[in-house]
Amino acid sequence: MSEHEHIDAGLMSSNFDMIQSLPLNVKQRVCALKKLQTKSIQVESDFYKRVHELEIEFEAKFKGLFDERRAIVTGEKEPSPEDVNVPILEGLEAEQLAELYKHTEADPSVKGIKDFWLTAFKTHDLVAESMEEHDLPILSYLTDVTTSASKDPAGFVLEFHFAQNPYFTDSKLTKQYVLAFDPEEDAPLSFDGPHVVRAIGCNINWADGKNVTKKAVKKKQKKGANAGKFLTKTVKADSFFNFFEPPKSKDERNEDEDDDSAEEFLELDYELGQAIRDTVIPRAVLFFTGELQSDEMFDFQGEDGDEVSDYSDDDA
Amino acid sequence: MSEHEHIDAGLMSSNFDMIQSLPLNVKQRVCALKKLQTKSIQVESDFYKRVHELEIEFEAKFKGLFDERRAIVTGEKEPSPEDVNVPILEGLEAEQLAELYKHTEADPSVKGIKDFWLTAFKTHDLVAESMEEHDLPILSYLTDVTTSASKDPAGFVLEFHFAQNPYFTDSKLTKQYVLAFDPEEDAPLSFDGPHVVRAIGCNINWADGKNVTKKAVKKKQKKGANAGKFLTKTVKADSFFNFFEPPKSKDERNEDEDDDSAEEFLELDYELGQAIRDTVIPRAVLFFTGELQSDEMFDFQGEDGDEVSDYSDDDA
Repeated sequence: MSEHEHIDAGLMSSNFDMIQSLPLNVKQRVCALKKLQTKSIQVESDFYKRVHELEIEFEAKFKGLFDERRAIVTGEKEPSPEDVNVPILEGLEAEQLAELYKHTEADPSVKGIKDFWLTAFKTHDLVAESMEEHDLPILSYLTDVTTSASKDPAGFVLEFHFAQNPYFTDSKLTKQYVLAFDPEEDAPLSFDGPHVVRAIGCNINWADGKNVTKKAVKKKQKKGANAGKFLTKTVKADSFFNFFEPPKSKDERNEDEDDDSAEEFLELDYELGQAIRDTVIPRAVLFFTGELQSDEMFDFQGEDGDEVSDYSDDDA
Repeated sequence: MSEHEHIDAGLMSSNFDMIQSLPLNVKQRVCALKKLQTKSIQVESDFYKRVHELEIEFEAKFKGLFDERRAIVTGEKEPSPEDVNVPILEGLEAEQLAELYKHTEADPSVKGIKDFWLTAFKTHDLVAESMEEHDLPILSYLTDVTTSASKDPAGFVLEFHFAQNPYFTDSKLTKQYVLAFDPEEDAPLSFDGPHVVRAIGCNINWADGKNVTKKAVKKKQKKGANAGKFLTKTVKADSFFNFFEPPKSKDERNEDEDDDSAEEFLELDYELGQAIRDTVIPRAVLFFTGELQSDEMFDFQGEDGDEVSDYSDDDA
C-alpha cells in the first residue's frame, strides 16, 4: 500500500452513525465483507513475503557492483580510463564542467575517496540528523556500508565497516531488523505491510575515554549524606552510535515501561534503518556529490491533497 | 526506494564546492562510481519489473475474494450465517457492539449494500476531494471497482462498473495507466522506480443534459459584432468524471503547452489512480465502515525528522 493508513477502534469510526442505522440484514452483509477482507489481507501478506524473497534474490545482483564501489572508495582498485568517462555532476554544460576541473591536479598521496560515506551520511537529511559533531571524526573511518536480507528470521542486517581507528577495536558494527510479514493476530485488519518487531544492535568495544555515547556530568546532591556536594555521574550522550543500542522490543520491555512511546522509538529507529538500506546504500555516490537530496525538505505534495481536485479549469 | 528524492542539476549540488576542490585522480574515482551507479540503477529497474510481474500473479489470488465481495455488495449473493460471525466494527466491547445492533431489524426490501462504493470513496481523503456534490447521485450507481495489471504495455487499468442509470449508457468506465520501468535515457540517475508515462481515459456516453463535466455559462461579449450581448458558452465543470479525461502525456501535447505543469497534472492524476488501486480497492469495506482513514490528515512523521535524533535521553 502506497499510503499509511490508520485503523481506529470502532467507536472512532467516522461512519459510526451510518453503520448503526443499517438494517440488520445489511449489517450482516458488511460483516461478511469484513471476513473476506481478513482473507485478502492474508493474500497481501503472502505478496510481501514474495517481494522480500525477490529482494534477497536481487542482493546477489547488486553485490558485484557494490564490491567494486568499495574497492574504489578504499583505494584497493584504481578505475580504468574507460570507467571514468562520465560527467562528475549531471546537467552541466561542457564549459561549466571544464570550469569544475580547472586548476585540479592529481594528488598521488590520496588513497581512494576520503570521507566518502561520512559525506553521503551528512547529505542525507534523516541520517544527518542522527549525527553529532563528535561522531564525524569516527565516521570518517567508515569504509563501506552493506546490507543483507534474510528469510529466517525475516528481516535484514546493516553492516558498517570501519578502517582501523583509535575509537573502538571493532572492524564492523551491525544493526539487525527482524520484520513480521503476517497480520497481527489481534488486529489483522490494521495490516499495512511488513512491520518491524525487533531491532538488534551490537556491543561497541570503545577505547578508554573514547565512548561518545556517554558523558560525565557533575550533579549537586540534593538529599542524603552527600547533600550539597558535587558527584560525577555518567549519562547517555546524543550520538549516531546510539543506533547500535536500539529501543527494546515488546517482549524485552518491563511492565512499567511505556509501550506506546517504546513502539514509537522502535518505528523511528526502523525509519532510519530503512533510509540507510533503501536510499543511502543504493545511491551513495549521488549523496556524496550532493546531487540527490531527500525531498522531505521541499516537497510536501499530497499532504493536503488540494492540488488533486484541480484537474479541470474553467477556460476550456 | 521508500522516500522520494530529487536529483538536481550539478550546479545546484549541495556539495559543489567540495567536488570542485577534489584532486583530479579523486574526481576520476567519483566518475567511476557514477558509472557503477548507472549500472545498479538498471538492476533496480529489473527488480521493479519483477515486482510488477508478482502483482500480475497475485491478482488471480485476489480475484475470487473480490468477486465474492461484488456478489454481496450487489445482492447477487446472500452471505451464510458462518460468513457473518465477525464484529461489524473492530475494538468494541461486547455491550458496545450490542448497542450498535439495538433496534435494528432486517429490511427485506434492501438489496445488497446500498452506496457501498460511494461511501468508501467519500471516506478516502484524496478520492473524496476529487468528487463534487453533483457526482454523488451518479456514483451511487457504482457496483464494483476492479483493477488489472499488464506487462505489455506495462501498467494497469481501473474499471468502474455501473448499474443501469439515467446519467450515461455505459456499464463500465475505464482508466488506464501506462508505466515505464526503465530509467529515462537522458537522466538515468534520477530513476526512482516505475513512473507514469501516459493516462488513458474513456469516452462517457452521457444522456442529454446529464453531463456533469460541462456547464453552461453566460458571458457578456466585449468585442466584435455581438459586443454587449450575452452568449452562452459551455465550459468544463469540476467533477470526479474528469478523471476519465486525463491530462495529456508528453507526446500528445502541443509545443506551446506548458510541459512542467502538464507533467505535474499527470503525476497528480496518477496519485489518485494509485490510491484507488492500492488502497480503496483492497480495503473498500474498511473505508465503508469508516474504520480506515488516510493518515495524511494527522500523521506528519518524518517530515522534519526531528524525532529521529531523539534516541537517547539524559536520564540513564
